Amino acid sequence: MADEKLTSQSENFSEWYNQLVLRAELADYAPVRGCMVVRPYGWTLWENMQAGLDRRFKETGHVNAAFPTLIPMSFFEKEKDHVEGFSPELAVVTHGGGKELEEKLAVRPTSETIIGYMYSKWVQSWRDLPILINQWGSVMRWELRTRLFLRTAEFYWQEGHTAHASAEEAKEETYRMLDVYADFAENDCAIPVVKGYKSETERFAGAQMTTGIESMMRDTKALQSGTSHYFGQNFAKAFEIDFLNKDNELEYAYTTSWGMSTRMIGALIMVHGDDQGMKMPPKIAPIQVVIVPIYRKDKEKDAVMAAVDEVFAELKAGGIRVKVDDREQLSPGFKFHDWEMRGVPLRLEIGPKDIEKNSVALARRDIPGREGKSFVSRLGLLDSVKETLDSIQTSLFEAAKQFRDENIHDPATYEELKEVVEKGWAFSYWCESAECEAKVKEDTKATTRVIPFKQPEEEGTCIVCGKKAHKKVYFAKAY
Amino acid sequence: MADEKLTSQSENFSEWYNQLVLRAELADYAPVRGCMVVRPYGWTLWENMQAGLDRRFKETGHVNAAFPTLIPMSFFEKEKDHVEGFSPELAVVTHGGGKELEEKLAVRPTSETIIGYMYSKWVQSWRDLPILINQWGSVMRWELRTRLFLRTAEFYWQEGHTAHASAEEAKEETYRMLDVYADFAENDCAIPVVKGYKSETERFAGAQMTTGIESMMRDTKALQSGTSHYFGQNFAKAFEIDFLNKDNELEYAYTTSWGMSTRMIGALIMVHGDDQGMKMPPKIAPIQVVIVPIYRKDKEKDAVMAAVDEVFAELKAGGIRVKVDDREQLSPGFKFHDWEMRGVPLRLEIGPKDIEKNSVALARRDIPGREGKSFVSRLGLLDSVKETLDSIQTSLFEAAKQFRDENIHDPATYEELKEVVEKGWAFSYWCESAECEAKVKEDTKATTRVIPFKQPEEEGTCIVCGKKAHKKVYFAKAY
Repeated sequence: MADEKLTSQSENFSEWYNQLVLRAELADYAPVRGCMVVRPYGWTLWENMQAGLDRRFKETGHVNAAFPTLIPMSFFEKEKDHVEGFSPELAVVTHGGGKELEEKLAVRPTSETIIGYMYSKWVQSWRDLPILINQWGSVMRWELRTRLFLRTAEFYWQEGHTAHASAEEAKEETYRMLDVYADFAENDCAIPVVKGYKSETERFAGAQMTTGIESMMRDTKALQSGTSHYFGQNFAKAFEIDFLNKDNELEYAYTTSWGMSTRMIGALIMVHGDDQGMKMPPKIAPIQVVIVPIYRKDKEKDAVMAAVDEVFAELKAGGIRVKVDDREQLSPGFKFHDWEMRGVPLRLEIGPKDIEKNSVALARRDIPGREGKSFVSRLGLLDSVKETLDSIQTSLFEAAKQFRDENIHDPATYEELKEVVEKGWAFSYWCESAECEAKVKEDTKATTRVIPFKQPEEEGTCIVCGKKAHKKVYFAKAY
Repeated sequence: MADEKLTSQSENFSEWYNQLVLRAELADYAPVRGCMVVRPYGWTLWENMQAGLDRRFKETGHVNAAFPTLIPMSFFEKEKDHVEGFSPELAVVTHGGGKELEEKLAVRPTSETIIGYMYSKWVQSWRDLPILINQWGSVMRWELRTRLFLRTAEFYWQEGHTAHASAEEAKEETYRMLDVYADFAENDCAIPVVKGYKSETERFAGAQMTTGIESMMRDTKALQSGTSHYFGQNFAKAFEIDFLNKDNELEYAYTTSWGMSTRMIGALIMVHGDDQGMKMPPKIAPIQVVIVPIYRKDKEKDAVMAAVDEVFAELKAGGIRVKVDDREQLSPGFKFHDWEMRGVPLRLEIGPKDIEKNSVALARRDIPGREGKSFVSRLGLLDSVKETLDSIQTSLFEAAKQFRDENIHDPATYEELKEVVEKGWAFSYWCESAECEAKVKEDTKATTRVIPFKQPEEEGTCIVCGKKAHKKVYFAKAY
């Protein structure tokens, strides 16, 4: 029931998360092991996120296409790191149309292989390059321990796959798409991110370079919410994507891939949420404004509902995603809590007194209690609403950034590092050896999250082994 | 190569279709039996179709959601007609994460079962109804003989699934969504349709009533391009979707489902295409206008390209989907044929003479040769382009309607029926018996396509057996 209180974040963060996802009707458990159902409220959120990403993809010259859900098993064998990474996670189709198949098919865990195969058919000359294709869909990776949005066997995402005539151009693409993700995360989702490289250990199976964006949840754990990979010629060689270059020589293409998934919804919940529930950033909120009519007697109802309908029509015409909560059997107080839990950024209340004063009460989701409440004139209401939504968008970002920055530590010793990763991130020099990385993981469960592009100019000493180090890295526990 | 001529429709319609789909880069064969790759030009077309449908779904109160791709095999057993209809076509996952599964999973052929299961969890009271959910995605039906867009093992579609508190409301929904499909087909795709009931034999597996829209291809065959089903309480009983009604009695819900797929792209090609290639209706065309610069000498090029860039910017700002074909190595004539083949509704030509006269040459795809060409002033070009696109949209519909009406026959005898279904549709009285239906199919390969909602007032006699008949039906060969 929506009127029961959620478990608080401080009591049990993970329980808080699970309750919220179910009660806000974002998603539900499916009757298939490890799979989820994304309910309309969650899917509308994803549609809004898709729109923000898709616009950016198209502005940077990409087009969408669709490749098959099923991939011949032999395709995975063609790139050795790729097969090692994905084989253990495959769901396998062995029968079709009542007969056993000659070649087994995997439900795609990612599409580099089958897209590589098609590109080899389509590319002959440098004139056919670059190919800049994105695909929206779902993929399947058999997972035993699952959590809605964060880790499920099937999840929804986009996967971009590009092929280029030079290494330089492909690397530019890799960075460009990471910038697109960072811009989307910060401006649309109000989630501050760190951009950087993944360590060799944390790279995508088959990639020569993996970049990612990392953000901090309210429990101070890290979550990777978008990645962009440079493959060099690995996949081009495996799938024979070759072309005649301008000098009329046969050359392998250079490829990239990049993806963002419904994990981003998990990030959204855990970056902005509080004990009352979710906080949707206005730019992607399925419902930006909810109007709650307030009346006690039946004789008040007609006047109130007439005013509510008027305001609804005005906001809707102004491009606001607005909903009227006219449920009869529920009290205004119940409705307030219900929409707070679902994270609607702005609530409007309209009662007999508001009509008298020709005003409307606005209550911001991001500022609790009286402080977040104001009364504005009906004249110019649309402008007031738009300004308030903009202000909420900005302050959600600022609050998340402040929280993150307060929880990034610069430990002086390895002992101190072990302490700080229990309550935040450590930003420390690291010698880039897999041994030191593994030691931190074993001692603390924290991993190297991201080696930021922006580095201090001076060198330092590795926080683990004390050897000379050129780079600082974020160590943190992660989802 | 794009400069080779397509096989003509009259020579070999089916070969013409296959060549066109590949050369226009709408789709390609996948390395998985029976599956297709929808290439960017085809997928952009599908995105435009999706936008037209999705807007109509939302205007009629529907929301989108996502249900799993894999469905437990036992779910199919719960509705006896459904299991008979779909079992032979399933692709089956038997292994996950390296282990054999306890229960096998089917790649969804359609989602009534798993959605029914979830609705039974979500519905308790009449207050939870109606549920009006749609899903965009792909489904898998193991097919041996496949054709791109028309019949592939995996295809892309939307499937709406609704649950209601009364039979009347569910039937209204069934008809409403068929109207949505017909409106979309006629207004956006310029495809005239007949709306009506499917015969009992042709019904969807598990439905109490199936309605559909049917259209005529250029070879006079019929193609069903959208269907809407009323299930009564069949699925609600199988999946226990029950609710407390307003009288506080437990009652089963009434459900519907409706779908339109990428077959519609096949219809689009076969309704409007000619020997030169495709004709895209402007409302859904990926590219509405292509600009071909015309110059012979390098010294002409700068001025021409400056004018082309100006026109491009003006049209783009005006909301037109416009492309400049600035490929260096190709002649204007080659480009003309290439874009004709791909079906771009309107071509603009700009050369030195046009610049002198401050005019632009427009060439309509739907009217070949000089007749379809006009010269308009650069002043007011955007308006001229918009008017011409509107006119093309209308005349594509009119041409298709005229062709269809000319090829619908009213045979006087069964012998005549056998003749006319070789060159068109027969619209005849039918006694509604499965025997007569089967006889026509056996004798001619024509099936009952649709029993139109609009019927003559008088009764007649069955064209097959001569018994009294209440309804007229379309008999035709079909895709």
